[in-house]
Amino acid sequence: MAVTEAERRAMSRALELAARGPRGVNPQVGAVILSPTGDVIAEGWHQGAGTPHAEVDALSKLSDGAARDATAIVTLEPCNHTGRTGPCALALIEAGVSRVVYALDDPGAASGGGAERLRDAGVEVESGEQADAAHALIADWLTAQQLGRPHITVKWAQSLDGRAAAADRTSQWITGAEARADVHRRRAAADAIVVGTGTVLADDPSLTARDGDRLHPHQPVPVVIGARETPADAAVRRHPHEPLFYDTRDLHAIVADLHARGIQSLFIEGGPTLASAFIAAGLADRILAYIAPVLLGGDRLAITDIGVGSIEAARRLTVEEWVPLGADLLAIAHPTASQEGNH
Amino acid sequence: MAVTEAERRAMSRALELAARGPRGVNPQVGAVILSPTGDVIAEGWHQGAGTPHAEVDALSKLSDGAARDATAIVTLEPCNHTGRTGPCALALIEAGVSRVVYALDDPGAASGGGAERLRDAGVEVESGEQADAAHALIADWLTAQQLGRPHITVKWAQSLDGRAAAADRTSQWITGAEARADVHRRRAAADAIVVGTGTVLADDPSLTARDGDRLHPHQPVPVVIGARETPADAAVRRHPHEPLFYDTRDLHAIVADLHARGIQSLFIEGGPTLASAFIAAGLADRILAYIAPVLLGGDRLAITDIGVGSIEAARRLTVEEWVPLGADLLAIAHPTASQEGNH
Repeated sequence: MAVTEAERRAMSRALELAARGPRGVNPQVGAVILSPTGDVIAEGWHQGAGTPHAEVDALSKLSDGAARDATAIVTLEPCNHTGRTGPCALALIEAGVSRVVYALDDPGAASGGGAERLRDAGVEVESGEQADAAHALIADWLTAQQLGRPHITVKWAQSLDGRAAAADRTSQWITGAEARADVHRRRAAADAIVVGTGTVLADDPSLTARDGDRLHPHQPVPVVIGARETPADAAVRRHPHEPLFYDTRDLHAIVADLHARGIQSLFIEGGPTLASAFIAAGLADRILAYIAPVLLGGDRLAITDIGVGSIEAARRLTVEEWVPLGADLLAIAHPTASQEGNH
Repeated sequence: MAVTEAERRAMSRALELAARGPRGVNPQVGAVILSPTGDVIAEGWHQGAGTPHAEVDALSKLSDGAARDATAIVTLEPCNHTGRTGPCALALIEAGVSRVVYALDDPGAASGGGAERLRDAGVEVESGEQADAAHALIADWLTAQQLGRPHITVKWAQSLDGRAAAADRTSQWITGAEARADVHRRRAAADAIVVGTGTVLADDPSLTARDGDRLHPHQPVPVVIGARETPADAAVRRHPHEPLFYDTRDLHAIVADLHARGIQSLFIEGGPTLASAFIAAGLADRILAYIAPVLLGGDRLAITDIGVGSIEAARRLTVEEWVPLGADLLAIAHPTASQEGNH
């Protein structure tokens, strides 16, 4: 059975509505209710954990009985799960909806099964309409679901010989303008940007994502890890988002807490101790190493100790791409899969 | 004035003859003497310092007067310089040669000017015939002439984070087969391969250039630098060439001695201390960094100290090419010219 032109248009609209919702613990979902004649009679979207799901939000805008024999268009399979809200599949059945068109299957073990429940109740169900767009919208959320934690990118800049700074700690402009702009674009795509207190105290970074002097529309939440106090006048305290401070070295606990806060992706920016700790803990899904064509020597290493004692224990990487950026080179890599079990 | 077909063929032959001579202090040169009717009446080539130059070698094969009105074809401008042998320009004039065709101008301040001397004596002179091939044949010699010392390539293999080995010193197979084959090809193109005694004692390298198990036809002379004794049963002592041992840390003196021995190109292979010392001394015309997609951490650095205290003093490199070799990446670079004056 095919999807009608009206349903197709409604799905595009539902995707727009979904994007209005916040990134967070729950995925962004949108819904449109069509009358039996194909007219839009209600719209809804999920506005964050603890608020109604998109379908229920849309139904709530209709008077009793108005959804009878209607068609619900939803960007994600209606859930079959009672959390802070009841199962959406049930709400649709109870409202008398006779047909449901959704884009993406729900991957959750607890929340999945909604389509089956709808069919069992005699509701017509179509899936896959504009699934790619729906997937793209919540790709980070799906990844975090799969990992059971945020997706983690560990980024550093280094000289060809692996130094982050010269002997006297000076490090400004190791990499060039293209590499720095690339970093800011990637910061803007992350939910949170993570640094150690050492970096805050040494460099006083603003941890904003900028395009020249202009702030990117999306700003990552700044996260500062370490026991030392961040000064009251630190630039990070003037970040558009309130910074999160963690006075612990238990990275797994920090990552779990950030996940619980709805953070789907982390961008680990430094310094060397923190980057190395994430790698050592097996908490690095992606490596971004910006390599400047310069030699520094000395002991200010970009990566310090990552728990490798012998060559057999080397952390093998699979390089997805070597990307020239001006005179610099960006290595985009991930840990080689066969080793993952050892972490 | 043009070059005849017979002269062109004679120059090709002279280039073949030149290649029979050894690489060394003097350039490889070949000569062919043509009769006035264009027949080959003598051939010669330079067989190494202290032996006759190519033109004189060819003339020596003729009886007195046999070269009268002949044409001399030479791959390099006949010299105008009295060293261990007399000036070739004068020998050609005295033999009665009436025309000289040569490929490449002599760049030497002391030896140049031969063409002018010939013309002043009424000899017809043509230059530039097959100059590219003649240049390619003695490119390393010309470079060494220009530098006043051998051309120096500093090569190392490193993990992405700049380590040469794991904490326990194990380093086997950091880079893959393609990268190792590339190293052997480049070894085969060098006149000498240089290591420190530390590398000899730790790794017992053979320092041969190999293609699988097969030795390359050309083998670099092994050079070992350092105060410690190389064991009698060290693999390097079984090298096709007698190794040269230098018990000094004065790299400039070593390089000058190698130059005096006719070595035109050096391949510095390790370890980290020696590579860093050559870079620190400004004795690195080319950098070859083989980067393996692996993280090691720890303190076994590929480059140790190169005398850089502050970021302004960083040794900036110009990367000629980033070359993927299997999973590895080779950075081919040279020191950025604007800094050269500081070395």
